[in-house]
Amino acid sequence: MNTASFVLHGDLCDSRDPQHLRGIPGGFLVCVDGRCAGAFPVLPDRYAGLPLIDCAGKLVIPGLTDLHVHAPQYAFRGLGMDLELLDWLNVRTFPEESRYADLTYARQTYQSFADDLRRSATTRCCVFATVHREAAELLMDLLEDTGLVALVGKVNMDRDCPDALREDTGASLAETRRWLADVSGRYERISPILTPRFVPSCTDALLDGLGELAAETGLPVQSHLSENRGEVELVAGLCPQARFYGDVYDRYGLFGSNGRAVMAHCVLSSEEETALMKERGTFVAHCPQSNANLSSGIAPVRRYLDEGLNVGLGSDIAGGSSLSILRAMADAVQVSKLRWRLQDQSLKPLTAAEAFYLGTAGGGAFFGPVGRFEPGYEMDAVVLDDARLSAPFPLTVEERVERAIYLSDDRDIVKKFVRGRCVL
Amino acid sequence: MNTASFVLHGDLCDSRDPQHLRGIPGGFLVCVDGRCAGAFPVLPDRYAGLPLIDCAGKLVIPGLTDLHVHAPQYAFRGLGMDLELLDWLNVRTFPEESRYADLTYARQTYQSFADDLRRSATTRCCVFATVHREAAELLMDLLEDTGLVALVGKVNMDRDCPDALREDTGASLAETRRWLADVSGRYERISPILTPRFVPSCTDALLDGLGELAAETGLPVQSHLSENRGEVELVAGLCPQARFYGDVYDRYGLFGSNGRAVMAHCVLSSEEETALMKERGTFVAHCPQSNANLSSGIAPVRRYLDEGLNVGLGSDIAGGSSLSILRAMADAVQVSKLRWRLQDQSLKPLTAAEAFYLGTAGGGAFFGPVGRFEPGYEMDAVVLDDARLSAPFPLTVEERVERAIYLSDDRDIVKKFVRGRCVL
Repeated sequence: MNTASFVLHGDLCDSRDPQHLRGIPGGFLVCVDGRCAGAFPVLPDRYAGLPLIDCAGKLVIPGLTDLHVHAPQYAFRGLGMDLELLDWLNVRTFPEESRYADLTYARQTYQSFADDLRRSATTRCCVFATVHREAAELLMDLLEDTGLVALVGKVNMDRDCPDALREDTGASLAETRRWLADVSGRYERISPILTPRFVPSCTDALLDGLGELAAETGLPVQSHLSENRGEVELVAGLCPQARFYGDVYDRYGLFGSNGRAVMAHCVLSSEEETALMKERGTFVAHCPQSNANLSSGIAPVRRYLDEGLNVGLGSDIAGGSSLSILRAMADAVQVSKLRWRLQDQSLKPLTAAEAFYLGTAGGGAFFGPVGRFEPGYEMDAVVLDDARLSAPFPLTVEERVERAIYLSDDRDIVKKFVRGRCVL
Repeated sequence: MNTASFVLHGDLCDSRDPQHLRGIPGGFLVCVDGRCAGAFPVLPDRYAGLPLIDCAGKLVIPGLTDLHVHAPQYAFRGLGMDLELLDWLNVRTFPEESRYADLTYARQTYQSFADDLRRSATTRCCVFATVHREAAELLMDLLEDTGLVALVGKVNMDRDCPDALREDTGASLAETRRWLADVSGRYERISPILTPRFVPSCTDALLDGLGELAAETGLPVQSHLSENRGEVELVAGLCPQARFYGDVYDRYGLFGSNGRAVMAHCVLSSEEETALMKERGTFVAHCPQSNANLSSGIAPVRRYLDEGLNVGLGSDIAGGSSLSILRAMADAVQVSKLRWRLQDQSLKPLTAAEAFYLGTAGGGAFFGPVGRFEPGYEMDAVVLDDARLSAPFPLTVEERVERAIYLSDDRDIVKKFVRGRCVL
């Protein structure tokens, strides 16, 4: 068993609710068999016998969830950011992804991704690989070794991409079944997720086959939705029978039910699309940095929260340049303010507390009871040494978390626990 | 003499022009008596006798200029970011600035600011202190010790702020004259800059007195301009005789001539205001992060560049949270893309090369021949070890600079030269 029982002593902070942080200075976070037994200002006697991990003076927050990240794009993050989505895919992304037929190359770059992800504050993630089955399995092997919990997808695409990446429809489905058989029972923490790249890259026949597979296996689904104007228009032209972009996935049973699908971006989702996401429990992976880098726009996250949708954050490497979900929190607040100013003053900007919720409990919910320090939640926790960010006046725990959102980086992360197991 | 003569060997990159980077892999940057003698792919024989500083494999870029930063706000950066400008000033900024009457407090916080600025990639900056003369002199003392070149201003304000900060008009002018006398000839690298906070904080009589002082001394001026809608409306109400916000400064001779004034923000500058900035050579300090944090909007930097205005970047601590001008470059590109998408598609987004220009040569020009590796330029240079950001494929020097803009931070800065003097 990798689970453990212990008490973590430090300045605890999680979300009381989507609008409010809950800080417990000098608190005690109790983990029993990998699950949270509660966060207490004073250690209850019944836990006095557990080993104490003393992180006094340091911040202890829930592990962060990255709902949308492309592992094979990590190598070129922060490069070639002067293109919009469809051009960027053709000029930068597809040529690079075609290299993952070569397992030696894949091992080198995926190892770097896994190493940096391990050192980050992320404990859960939804990861795109490439179309290549063997490289996807290699990525899963490497991520298993990080101790993180991840859903990883071999990508499916059978149209509108370079020959080197375009799969034959039947072969794509067969390879997907082979992949699922290969990885079945192989990992403790890594699981497969069905990954049609996005509608422009997938024929109806491929989506139909993946929908059958979803129904048969009950596997979750990840894809892209309503990111960019050109993309949305392309989808409308490709699928005239669909009422809106998300309807295409839904017709094939790929839009999730009971929150089993996560859709990246949703910058341009219509009211109808939003209503269907709510009905299906579909998760929105909000990727603010990517949406700025690729000139896509700013998703109406306030509306999604108000309407009760499931929403979390994604780094969207390499549309986004930074792997940090703390940075994604700050970006989410900042772009929401610009959206309010420039686009729609009916939607109030996000607060730091709300962005923190998105990066912890909001996205964590895709993995079950994850992202809060409540009894029964899986024990994902990150210890941040924020001494570097000290102030000449006293700060509350909640203020220190706000400052960490804006200013901390991976060097401040001193310990990380996933399901109660120390992985850093 | 603090100047020196040497050759710096590394992967050099500066701006060829506002649109293009110039990378010289394995190049030689020659410094003679604190000034650049050129950047060469092969070391000319005539410099072979100079000491060689070997930074092979590392990036060498010009020192960065921060055209707008508030030293007394450094202590609360990244805190309380859920307010707009005028509320944020009253709730956060003014109470904190009033503490700078206490020199012990000032020393502690200003030292922290100076330390972090020294470790950053910034070599030149325009700094606001507070209204307190003695604290402003202390800040100048501490900044002199960093080795950076800075223009520092004792702030003037005589209305519309808390009693603890509001100066009597005559006393404000007298204290300013006393301050100028105190610091005259005291520093090698630090100089005073006249600093009316902004129109809402300054009566006509104060602006008039400062204008006289500017004419008398020839000192440069820094202030704020057209940052936020509420502020612009407030100024229009306060100064009905002015044609536009910047006209108020200009009427008192505080809008510069021959590029002797720098105005922060210019988010909402009208065509008339822009035309006058061009006529006067006024510098725009573009502060993208602050403009997002305070929900101000996005300045039309493309328009300013196209019209030939002087433009550089500012961190605007603590409207901005990050002291890094590399980060400001990335922010400038990102918000320009959002502006293009959401506000005005006639203004193309900025490129990484253009943002680099703004943070080096663009802002550096406020200090004279600064921010490029051209003969006669003052030798400000930063050495970045970007090994942490390596890629599994070869990158050009220009690509490495783009990546550093998006991903590097202060831990990557290994050496810094200001006017040829090694300060880090």
